[in-house]
Amino acid sequence: MDIQRHGTTRRYSDFVCHAGTVYLVEVPPDPTADIRTQTRETLASLERLLAQAGSDKSRLLLATLYLRDMADYEAMNEVWDAWLPAGTAPARACVQAKLAHPDYRVEIVLIAAQNRQPA
Amino acid sequence: MDIQRHGTTRRYSDFVCHAGTVYLVEVPPDPTADIRTQTRETLASLERLLAQAGSDKSRLLLATLYLRDMADYEAMNEVWDAWLPAGTAPARACVQAKLAHPDYRVEIVLIAAQNRQPA
Amino acid sequence: MDIQRHGTTRRYSDFVCHAGTVYLVEVPPDPTADIRTQTRETLASLERLLAQAGSDKSRLLLATLYLRDMADYEAMNEVWDAWLPAGTAPARACVQAKLAHPDYRVEIVLIAAQNRQPA
Repeated sequence: MDIQRHGTTRRYSDFVCHAGTVYLVEVPPDPTADIRTQTRETLASLERLLAQAGSDKSRLLLATLYLRDMADYEAMNEVWDAWLPAGTAPARACVQAKLAHPDYRVEIVLIAAQNRQPA
Repeated sequence: MDIQRHGTTRRYSDFVCHAGTVYLVEVPPDPTADIRTQTRETLASLERLLAQAGSDKSRLLLATLYLRDMADYEAMNEVWDAWLPAGTAPARACVQAKLAHPDYRVEIVLIAAQNRQPA
Repeated sequence: MDIQRHGTTRRYSDFVCHAGTVYLVEVPPDPTADIRTQTRETLASLERLLAQAGSDKSRLLLATLYLRDMADYEAMNEVWDAWLPAGTAPARACVQAKLAHPDYRVEIVLIAAQNRQPA
């Protein structure tokens, strides 16, 4: 198969890979937590998924961050900035949007590159 | 040409293909309809466009669904879940956003894989 | 390296290239300007970045435009429509969203194709 999926339900997959590119979306595992914890745990989930997809957080291409409340911008960024390996930041959009669960404070979409195949 | 476009106006194309990947955006053909009908008709349009692009709904990589009102989430999902072939769901983000036409209740962005070329 | 980045900070890159595809996000350089100027200057920035990435505005694949206020839709479109070379429009989504800076009226995400390598 030229398309690989992981964590596939009727509605979505945790990630999908095609042609060396990985597409991932993650929401907070614990929506009752504060913004720092929600961001940290969402990024930790994405990091695990990236590893399963044969990629890692130093290979992000484009990130879209949705925040329920732009007042969380600085707190989210503290966690984001600390999480990213220096010199590897992706192109990034961040906008405010109401999310599917009323307690979600953040939802993150990543497009990343898989690791290069050995020659 | 290494880029193929379809339905191109001054402002947008219905889809654009490059390097085996298809990019599509669709809005409801009949914005006066209810959320189930708007979703069904938007997905039907996307399905036709995917076919014209040499892809199909079993080859979706990433979907972004914008809802005018998150109260439509369950009704939209009923249609979405029934439309997707089992085991093929893409990575998916769904957020609330005001859309370009006040009656649009949904707007859908897809990134999909074209069919593999015969060897 | 199989990933090229430009304008990389702790938080984001101005653009990232991988496998012939470029990912870019831009916000208005002067957020005090009106919507036409913010759009024109954001697109001018993107045009410069596209050139640095080995692409150009005739090679856009997917555009996502976030507007702070959908009332700016027509004015933004005037600038957008005039900027795009005829016959080259990308797939495009446009939704309303509160942006990171209260004065930003527009934020634009582009996915574009790099120029073909000489054979």
